[in-house]
Amino acid sequence: LARIEPRVLKGFRDYLPEVMIPRQKMLATIEGIFQTFGFVPLMTPALEYAEILLGKYGDEGDQLLYRFQTRGDRDVALRYDLTVPLARVVAQYPEITLPFRRYQIAPVWRAEKPQRGRFREFVQCDGDIIGSAEMVADAEIVQLACALLEGLGVARYRVRLNNRKVLAGLMERIGVASGPAEAGVLRTIDKLPKIGAEEARRLLREENGLGGEQIAAAFEFLDMAGEADDVLRRLEAFFQGRGPGLEGTRELRQVFEILAAVGLTERAALDLSIARGLAYYTGTIYEAFLEDLPAVGAVMGGGRYDGLIGLFKDQEVPSVGISLGIDRLLAGLIELGVLETGRSVAQVLVTVFDGATAPAASRVAWNLRRGGVACELFPAPGKLAKQFRHAEREGLRWAVVVGPEEVAQGLVTVKDLETREQRSMPEAELVAYLSAASRS
Amino acid sequence: LARIEPRVLKGFRDYLPEVMIPRQKMLATIEGIFQTFGFVPLMTPALEYAEILLGKYGDEGDQLLYRFQTRGDRDVALRYDLTVPLARVVAQYPEITLPFRRYQIAPVWRAEKPQRGRFREFVQCDGDIIGSAEMVADAEIVQLACALLEGLGVARYRVRLNNRKVLAGLMERIGVASGPAEAGVLRTIDKLPKIGAEEARRLLREENGLGGEQIAAAFEFLDMAGEADDVLRRLEAFFQGRGPGLEGTRELRQVFEILAAVGLTERAALDLSIARGLAYYTGTIYEAFLEDLPAVGAVMGGGRYDGLIGLFKDQEVPSVGISLGIDRLLAGLIELGVLETGRSVAQVLVTVFDGATAPAASRVAWNLRRGGVACELFPAPGKLAKQFRHAEREGLRWAVVVGPEEVAQGLVTVKDLETREQRSMPEAELVAYLSAASRS
Repeated sequence: LARIEPRVLKGFRDYLPEVMIPRQKMLATIEGIFQTFGFVPLMTPALEYAEILLGKYGDEGDQLLYRFQTRGDRDVALRYDLTVPLARVVAQYPEITLPFRRYQIAPVWRAEKPQRGRFREFVQCDGDIIGSAEMVADAEIVQLACALLEGLGVARYRVRLNNRKVLAGLMERIGVASGPAEAGVLRTIDKLPKIGAEEARRLLREENGLGGEQIAAAFEFLDMAGEADDVLRRLEAFFQGRGPGLEGTRELRQVFEILAAVGLTERAALDLSIARGLAYYTGTIYEAFLEDLPAVGAVMGGGRYDGLIGLFKDQEVPSVGISLGIDRLLAGLIELGVLETGRSVAQVLVTVFDGATAPAASRVAWNLRRGGVACELFPAPGKLAKQFRHAEREGLRWAVVVGPEEVAQGLVTVKDLETREQRSMPEAELVAYLSAASRS
Repeated sequence: LARIEPRVLKGFRDYLPEVMIPRQKMLATIEGIFQTFGFVPLMTPALEYAEILLGKYGDEGDQLLYRFQTRGDRDVALRYDLTVPLARVVAQYPEITLPFRRYQIAPVWRAEKPQRGRFREFVQCDGDIIGSAEMVADAEIVQLACALLEGLGVARYRVRLNNRKVLAGLMERIGVASGPAEAGVLRTIDKLPKIGAEEARRLLREENGLGGEQIAAAFEFLDMAGEADDVLRRLEAFFQGRGPGLEGTRELRQVFEILAAVGLTERAALDLSIARGLAYYTGTIYEAFLEDLPAVGAVMGGGRYDGLIGLFKDQEVPSVGISLGIDRLLAGLIELGVLETGRSVAQVLVTVFDGATAPAASRVAWNLRRGGVACELFPAPGKLAKQFRHAEREGLRWAVVVGPEEVAQGLVTVKDLETREQRSMPEAELVAYLSAASRS
C-alpha cells in the first residue's frame, strides 16, 4: 500500500493543542457570559437543503456555498453562516416563543479564494435577540459586547455605534438613490478611518460620482464627532427634524440613554463612519475594538436586521445580534497578555519507573486527579530522563517519581523541573503539596 | 417571493435549547475530566481530501461518506469519524511528539439509512493515548472511563473488559480462520448477552458453520465468569500456555493489577463476550454500562488499535482510546435524574415596565450579571402579565419589577413566580437577595 500524504485542504486548518488550549478557555468564558445574559444554546446541522440557504446571501454569497447532490439526490449545502439556520429554526418550531435569545458557536463554510487570514472553514460565535423591535434590546446587545470584553480581561476597549437609518437619512439629504449607488457610498464611508478624508473625497467624487455640494454635506455629517449627546443634537439639526435620519437619531439617543444608566458612557462612542458590510442591517449597527491594538480591527460587530429572520415566515421578526471574530479576538487577547497560553492543561507528570511500579504510579495519578490536581501519567515505563524531557517539552512544571524504593517506603519524590529541586514526601501528602504549589 | 418551507434534511436534527442546556453541562463536565487526565484538545476540519478518508472504514464505510467535488475540482468528503483525522494529524506535524493524549468533541457525518436512533450527523467524543504499547496506557483509559462516569454522577456503573488477542486465541483453539469466518463468529459472540446461549449455539452452528466440539470449546471459554483473577487463571489453562490467547491473558492481568491498585476492582469486570464491532482493534477492548439502566446499552467503548494511527506514516504507532456515546449517555443521565434539565440557564427575569424606566431596568440587569446572577431582560416594554407568562414558560423562577414608583424610591420588587409572593427592597440589596435565593 502506497503511503498517502497527510495534508489538509487549502483554506482549511488543524487547530493543534497549543492553539486550542487558550481558544477553549476563551470560548468557555464567552459561553459563561452569554449565559449570564440569559442566552440559551442552540445547535443546527452543518448541512441544509440548498433552497434554505440560496438567495439569502446575494449572488456573491451563493457562489461561495459548498453545494452538492447527495446519493439520494438531495440538493444540499454546508451552512454559510448561523443566521439563516436560526431564521429557519424560529419559523419551524412552534415551541420556540418570542422573544428568544440564543447563542451558537459553530463552524461555517465558504468556498472563498484562500488568502492571508481568510479561511474556508471558520468558527462563528453569534448571539441574537429575536422578536423585539425596541431599543432596549439593541442596548442589551451592546452591554453584552462590553461584558464579553471585560470578562475576557480587556482593560481598554470601545464599542462604536451608528444606525443605518441615520445613514439612509444622509443619502436622502445628499440625494443618493438606494441600491447600488447607496451601497457604493457606504463602502467608501466605511473605509474612511483607514484611508483618510482626502482619499475618501477622491473616491466619493471619482468612484461614487458625487458632486462638490454632495461631498461637502457628506463631510459635514462625517465630521460630527465627540460626546454622543452633542453629536445627536447636531444630527437632529442636520436632518431638519424629519425622515429616517431623525428616526435613527432618536433610536441612537435611546440606546445611549440606557448605556449611560448602566455606566458605559465611556465605553461606547457614536461613530458615523461605521457602516458594516452586510446589506441586511436596518437600524443600530456597531463594532467593538481593542483600544490598545487598533491594527487588529473590529473584534465584534453586529446590529439590527428586522427583515431577515422572517424569511421563512409570513411576518417580519425584528432582531438584533452580535457576532464575535473568534480568531481576531484570540490573537488580540494573546497579544494583550490577558490569556494564558501553553501546550498542556496539566502541570504535573507522574512518571512510570517500570512495570512493577506501574500500579503504584497509576494510584498516585488517580489520587491526584480525585484531589483536583490535573496530571498526565507517562503511559510507558522507561528512562526517567526521557520522561522528564517529555514533561519539559509539554510545559509541565512538576514530575512525580514513584520508584521501587519510594514504593517500599510509601513515599513519592516530586521534582520541580524549573528549579531542578526535588523532595520526597509520604504519598498521602502529595495532593496537598501539589495543589498548593500549582496555585502559587 | 414564495415562502420556503422551513425543514431539516432527513437523518439530521436541530438541538433546541431544552436539549442543548443539559447537553452542554454534560460536555463541560466531560471536558473537565479529560483535562484532569492531561488530555489536550485538538480540532480538525470537517472536510478532508477523500483519499485521506477512503479505504479506512472498509467498503461499507466508504459507501457512507458524504463525498463530492468542489468547484476547484478537489475530491473531498465530510469526516466519518475522529480517528482517521487524528492519524493524519499525528503523521503530519513533527511538533506533535509521542506519547500524545488528545480529546476531541465534534460532529461526524455518515450517509446511513435513517432509522430510529441512527442519525446522519452526530457528535463524537473521543480520547486517545497515542504512542504507547504498554498496558499502563490501557488501564489509564479504563480509569478515565470510570472517572467520567463518576464525575457525571453515576453511582452504579460497570466497565466490561476483554482482549482481542484472547478472542484470537479462542479462534486458534477452535480452528476458525481469521478473516470473514472469524468476524462472523465474533459477531455472534458479541450478541450473546442479548440473545442468550441457546440462540447463540444455533447461530454458531447454522450461520458460522461450527461443529459440536468447536461449539463446546467456545462455550467452555464463554462460560468463564466471576472474579477476574480466577477467570484469568482458567484462561491460561484453556490456552495451554501459548499463542495470542496467552499474551492477551497476560495483558488483561496487567490491566486488572493496575485497576486493583487504584481501587477500581468493583467497577471493572472481565467479560469474554465483549467483542466490539470495529475490525481495527488489536488488544484490550471494553465497554461501559449504567448498571441501573442496562437497556440503554454501552455508553462508552473503546480499546487498543495498534495498526490505525500509522496509516499515514512508515511506522506503527500503538494507540488506545475511548469513545463516548453522547446521545445515549445524555438520555441515561437524564433518566437517572443526575443531570438537571430546563429551558433556561438564568432563573431571573428583569421586566421592562415602559420606555421611561427601560434605563433603570437595564441597570438592574447589568448589576445582577456583574454580581454573578444570570438574568434575562425582557427586551421590550409592555404588559407585566405577558412578561410574567414568558418567564413561567421559560422556567424562570423570579421576576423583578422596576416600575416608575420603584424607580422614584430607589426600590425594586421581586416576584417569586412559584409562591406568587412578592417583596420590595432597595435596588442595592437585590444582588445579595437573589444570589442567596437562587442558591437555596
